[in-house]
Amino acid sequence: MTGAAVRPDTIRWYGERIDEALVRMLDELLEGVGPQVADPVRYAVLGPGKRIRPLLLMAACRATGGDAESAAPVACSVEFVHAYSLVHDDLPCMDDDVLRRGRPTLHVRYGTREAVLAGAALMPLAVLAIRRGAARLGLGDPTARRLVGRLTVAAGGQGMVGGQLLDLRAEGRDVTPEELETIHRGKTARLIAAACAMGGIAAGATDEQVGRLERFGTRLGLAFQATDDILDLRGTTDELGKESGRDAVLRKATYPAVHGLVEAERLSRALVESAERELEGLPDPGDLRTIADWIIARRH
Amino acid sequence: MTGAAVRPDTIRWYGERIDEALVRMLDELLEGVGPQVADPVRYAVLGPGKRIRPLLLMAACRATGGDAESAAPVACSVEFVHAYSLVHDDLPCMDDDVLRRGRPTLHVRYGTREAVLAGAALMPLAVLAIRRGAARLGLGDPTARRLVGRLTVAAGGQGMVGGQLLDLRAEGRDVTPEELETIHRGKTARLIAAACAMGGIAAGATDEQVGRLERFGTRLGLAFQATDDILDLRGTTDELGKESGRDAVLRKATYPAVHGLVEAERLSRALVESAERELEGLPDPGDLRTIADWIIARRH
Repeated sequence: MTGAAVRPDTIRWYGERIDEALVRMLDELLEGVGPQVADPVRYAVLGPGKRIRPLLLMAACRATGGDAESAAPVACSVEFVHAYSLVHDDLPCMDDDVLRRGRPTLHVRYGTREAVLAGAALMPLAVLAIRRGAARLGLGDPTARRLVGRLTVAAGGQGMVGGQLLDLRAEGRDVTPEELETIHRGKTARLIAAACAMGGIAAGATDEQVGRLERFGTRLGLAFQATDDILDLRGTTDELGKESGRDAVLRKATYPAVHGLVEAERLSRALVESAERELEGLPDPGDLRTIADWIIARRH
Repeated sequence: MTGAAVRPDTIRWYGERIDEALVRMLDELLEGVGPQVADPVRYAVLGPGKRIRPLLLMAACRATGGDAESAAPVACSVEFVHAYSLVHDDLPCMDDDVLRRGRPTLHVRYGTREAVLAGAALMPLAVLAIRRGAARLGLGDPTARRLVGRLTVAAGGQGMVGGQLLDLRAEGRDVTPEELETIHRGKTARLIAAACAMGGIAAGATDEQVGRLERFGTRLGLAFQATDDILDLRGTTDELGKESGRDAVLRKATYPAVHGLVEAERLSRALVESAERELEGLPDPGDLRTIADWIIARRH
């Protein structure tokens, strides 16, 4: 979309690192916990997934001079938060989805009450993952504190959950482009921006570099949401691994609904270009750009 | 129950301090957040409540030589976690309760999807409350890290949520006394024990003192759960401010169901006595003992 070639090897390398780290981190954090608890938590996290947020965190770490692979344990935290949000989104009382990533959703597999609880377990586990990951990187308590702060603000009322609540209140009515951006900033972009910023913090980046990574993440996050909205409208259930066309059924606030399909696609491209300009001047932004391109170019 | 007189003035003093702190902390943490998000979050936390966990934290702080009132901002964190657990417990897909603390439950008042989200917002807010509270106490990052660690472990799969998942799996069948204790340790006692330990940590207590506070909290938490089970069986809806007799309807694992009513009451008393023995030798355990007695002697 932005001219750069998408290199599947890069994505695969990162994906393998984070998948290994997720398995190991859950083994550590769920040690001594019975299968009634551990099984649904693992199911929530370890299914097939694009791992966009942890990949961005790891690549942002590399972009600012850190070691991407060493950041994988910290990166587990953003995937935990994302996974919990998907579990709760899918609940019968929320979007009532029965398929996610091509598998039955957690509540279909384990029961609704189990899904509420397993989702809720992932937020504290995310904080614990940061602590372990930061210790393994040899980061001091002040840096660990910054990482926890970024994640919790991005996940809470001022971030993801706040955006989701605004989103609910917008269903079934027309929203302005400004409202749409506020919703999507909270619902999607804040956590993606936090992931990028956290990669920089883990690498010991300067405040100026962390600021660049955060702006990059915010714009990429908005573009990602636009792409997601467009895909929901265009894709088939088989291609998406989840039911398509749900947004329109629920009259959700989406980029195509507010701007029309063509303008939504243009906006998405413009956001990615503006995001990638923030990367200029960072020591090693190649992988981060590759991942951004892959996220936006994806077909499912 | 244990011979000490219950002093309502002490309870009232602590209750007023924590209620003020909860209002202020939510004002700070929800600054700039719209009413769609802030209203249900405030409703979840600010209704009438006994504030058992934050009172224990504050009194545990005093018990080990700290200032109880200064610990109130940190103490907000344990009430946030408790409040989120109640919101999720009450959901139609969970216990399906319509009354809580004499008011309509959050999902009845604001909608089910809003209740799922507002509950989820409280866990990150709890972590943020610790950070603010610790900074205000002048505690360093290592101490803040210990506080966050205690809370997140107690809230997650090895604690509250884990216990709730085990509890679900135990419904409708007979459980052994050992299973019952495992369930109640996770579901109830871990968070109460964490609150007590956190009070000591905030006061700069020794590891030996923090260990005593934690054991005190665990035993008190188990006794509290036993009392709660007994009250659910005996109380009326008017007295409890929530529907009574629900445990029996749902065939939940409770102390009276496993041990019989008389033995459950004896066990509860023995646990409180054993808990309070842990307080001997602490510098100023009077308020903590008063609060423990009040918790167990309460009629609703």
